[in-house]
Amino acid sequence: MAIEPFDVVDLIHAKRDKGALSTAQIDWMIDAYTRGYIGDEQMAAMTMAIFLNGMQREEIRDLTLAMIASGERMNFDALSKPTTDKHSTGGVGDKITLPLAPLVASFGVAVPQLSGRGLGHTGGTLDKLESIPGWRADLSNDEFFAQLESVGSVICAAGAGLAPADKKLYALRDITGTVEAIPLIASSIMSKKIAEGTASLVLDVKFGSGAFLKDPARSRELAETMVALGKDAGVATVALLTNMNVPLGLTIGNANEVRESVEVLAGGGPADVVEITVALAREMLALAGQPEADVEAALKDGRAMDTWNAMIRAQGGDPSAALPVARETHVVTAPSSGVLVKQEALPFGIAAWRLGAGRARKQDPVQHAAGIDLHAKPGDTVTEGQPLFTLSADEPARFERALEALEGAYEIAAPGTAFTADPLIAGRIA
Amino acid sequence: MAIEPFDVVDLIHAKRDKGALSTAQIDWMIDAYTRGYIGDEQMAAMTMAIFLNGMQREEIRDLTLAMIASGERMNFDALSKPTTDKHSTGGVGDKITLPLAPLVASFGVAVPQLSGRGLGHTGGTLDKLESIPGWRADLSNDEFFAQLESVGSVICAAGAGLAPADKKLYALRDITGTVEAIPLIASSIMSKKIAEGTASLVLDVKFGSGAFLKDPARSRELAETMVALGKDAGVATVALLTNMNVPLGLTIGNANEVRESVEVLAGGGPADVVEITVALAREMLALAGQPEADVEAALKDGRAMDTWNAMIRAQGGDPSAALPVARETHVVTAPSSGVLVKQEALPFGIAAWRLGAGRARKQDPVQHAAGIDLHAKPGDTVTEGQPLFTLSADEPARFERALEALEGAYEIAAPGTAFTADPLIAGRIA
Repeated sequence: MAIEPFDVVDLIHAKRDKGALSTAQIDWMIDAYTRGYIGDEQMAAMTMAIFLNGMQREEIRDLTLAMIASGERMNFDALSKPTTDKHSTGGVGDKITLPLAPLVASFGVAVPQLSGRGLGHTGGTLDKLESIPGWRADLSNDEFFAQLESVGSVICAAGAGLAPADKKLYALRDITGTVEAIPLIASSIMSKKIAEGTASLVLDVKFGSGAFLKDPARSRELAETMVALGKDAGVATVALLTNMNVPLGLTIGNANEVRESVEVLAGGGPADVVEITVALAREMLALAGQPEADVEAALKDGRAMDTWNAMIRAQGGDPSAALPVARETHVVTAPSSGVLVKQEALPFGIAAWRLGAGRARKQDPVQHAAGIDLHAKPGDTVTEGQPLFTLSADEPARFERALEALEGAYEIAAPGTAFTADPLIAGRIA
Repeated sequence: MAIEPFDVVDLIHAKRDKGALSTAQIDWMIDAYTRGYIGDEQMAAMTMAIFLNGMQREEIRDLTLAMIASGERMNFDALSKPTTDKHSTGGVGDKITLPLAPLVASFGVAVPQLSGRGLGHTGGTLDKLESIPGWRADLSNDEFFAQLESVGSVICAAGAGLAPADKKLYALRDITGTVEAIPLIASSIMSKKIAEGTASLVLDVKFGSGAFLKDPARSRELAETMVALGKDAGVATVALLTNMNVPLGLTIGNANEVRESVEVLAGGGPADVVEITVALAREMLALAGQPEADVEAALKDGRAMDTWNAMIRAQGGDPSAALPVARETHVVTAPSSGVLVKQEALPFGIAAWRLGAGRARKQDPVQHAAGIDLHAKPGDTVTEGQPLFTLSADEPARFERALEALEGAYEIAAPGTAFTADPLIAGRIA
């Protein structure tokens, strides 16, 4: 048996008592946890201590690097084009990756978008794309590189070899109530993204009701932490702080979000989805050496759509196939006439989840046609009896619990009430 | 599958975010942890959150009651005499239970002393007694009650049926760095002691170098918490706060501590051991209805020794048998002449542990003859070259690491230096 250089209880004590861990201690801790020498119960105590006592900037960097070192690191040097990637901290109706990846790729840039499935009230990009008949998320390494070269954009599942320590630690945090700690979120996201080997990265860090971190100040802190981690690792990184108090666009679900994404790629779509897609595309293209790229033109003239179609086909999907439709729908109408002044992201996300669009446990399937279509957005004038939103599900029994989640989630004020929407993009950190 | 009334992650979040848990939540949590529904990693996160954010008095009471409810509760109503018990939070050279239990029992009081084995630098009462040839710690329920009635004092291992939740939780805390939290210490000790069914209880709560909690203020807080828990549960409880900066008596180990205990029972022994033994005996006897008992007389006239002999014999031991002697000894002499002004408990405890008197892992055996004999105590005048203490071990290889622990642990000041010992008993909480 190898002699271990540290005692895990000593390390827990150090963090518990508000101390900082050294580089060697963090390297050992992540390695020992990955190989099972440190137990889940010990790491759970450590993560709670980190949650409550924090980590210094150097510790977060060391933790990120240790998690990268726990697995493979991809390398795109052999590609003929620059790489850029995007990560969103997750929201309600957040389908932005779908139009964004092909839009950016249509400028000759490689977008290796390794994505996840959803858990809880935030959707997962792979779940959405899997509503397209034939589309598959799992690619071999060769398929992945070939598609990056030929199409430019790939949205697929991350291999198990990238940052395995992060996978193990994230699963642990999920069941031990330590998800929302900034040092742990930042190192988790950035270890995966840096291991993925992208040359540049744009972060969409959300705040508000439907976001992971509701408080704008904490979201800013997370963004600043991640941008610094990216730069430390030689990845050009920019973050936008975006508002997640209201669902993005008019769809929350899977198939319906694909439909809306295709509208954006066709030059249409809801203004908020277009605004975020364009802003992120500009940042990604600037980092990839094309600061002057005319992003809107690529949406209007079909270049982004062509790339989308090629991307879906390359992964076995039929972009022109009909998307699944739910067996049951339930329309909620406006109880009075006036101005819609509230449409809160979190309850709408929870309602879509309860309709079957999301999963409660990792092993559960999602129902691709389940979800919510919004017929009005905050600021819109509505008339009593007009449809406000439509719930879709495969089983009618799901409507009741979804409607429970939506109690108090929307509000109609007297006709003529003034309404000013908050800015969608609240800040930029570079 | 039964439907669970709470979500463990919600409970962890509540404590993580400085909330209080309700009685129903704590009852469920301890029950669900005992039956394995709540995992060790989840309980580890919870205990770290409790460590860092604390618990209100009501929560500590609820936790204690829930741990009692996890197992059996003993009942001494059928005994012809009152019961009283003592618990020490543990120290270095703390053999007090050995003379104390028969001393108190010699007054016709029942002392059902369920004890543990040592782990780390503090010794265990059962380990000490097991150095007596033939003596056994495991008694049947019938043997236990019969000995309480006939001899009065029993020192034996606690059955697995008492507060099993506490056993599981303590083992978890031990490996996850959450041992020293007052709510967890208090509920752990008191759940066992209340489940043991004693009518009254005296607590020896130690502070200083060799104690569990070094800070006197925190020891006082622990004592106050435990006294309140005892009273809430109908157990008359008193605590003494005692100084553990210096090892108790002149022996640290197992067999040598038995030898010293027998000296006390014979009316001799070191002054500090006698002082603590007598003070605790007076408290126990007062709670058992004999406030005027002449405790010193029972030590001088052989009554306490008679009860000791009967107690050892009843458990298969031979009180007149020779105790084991170590194969190797190493004498440390005074490097200069002067006054011994420092003899720090913790390093002496660690040194004795390294010599083999304690165990690093639960399954390890102890070496009964290993330990340290002190030849001088703080305040004593010593002459250069005179023996200061003797290390005993079965393997000479152990001396080096024991001596390492003792570097800086003792100090001799210039001849004539004034020295005033701190009071041994620093407070009383009733």
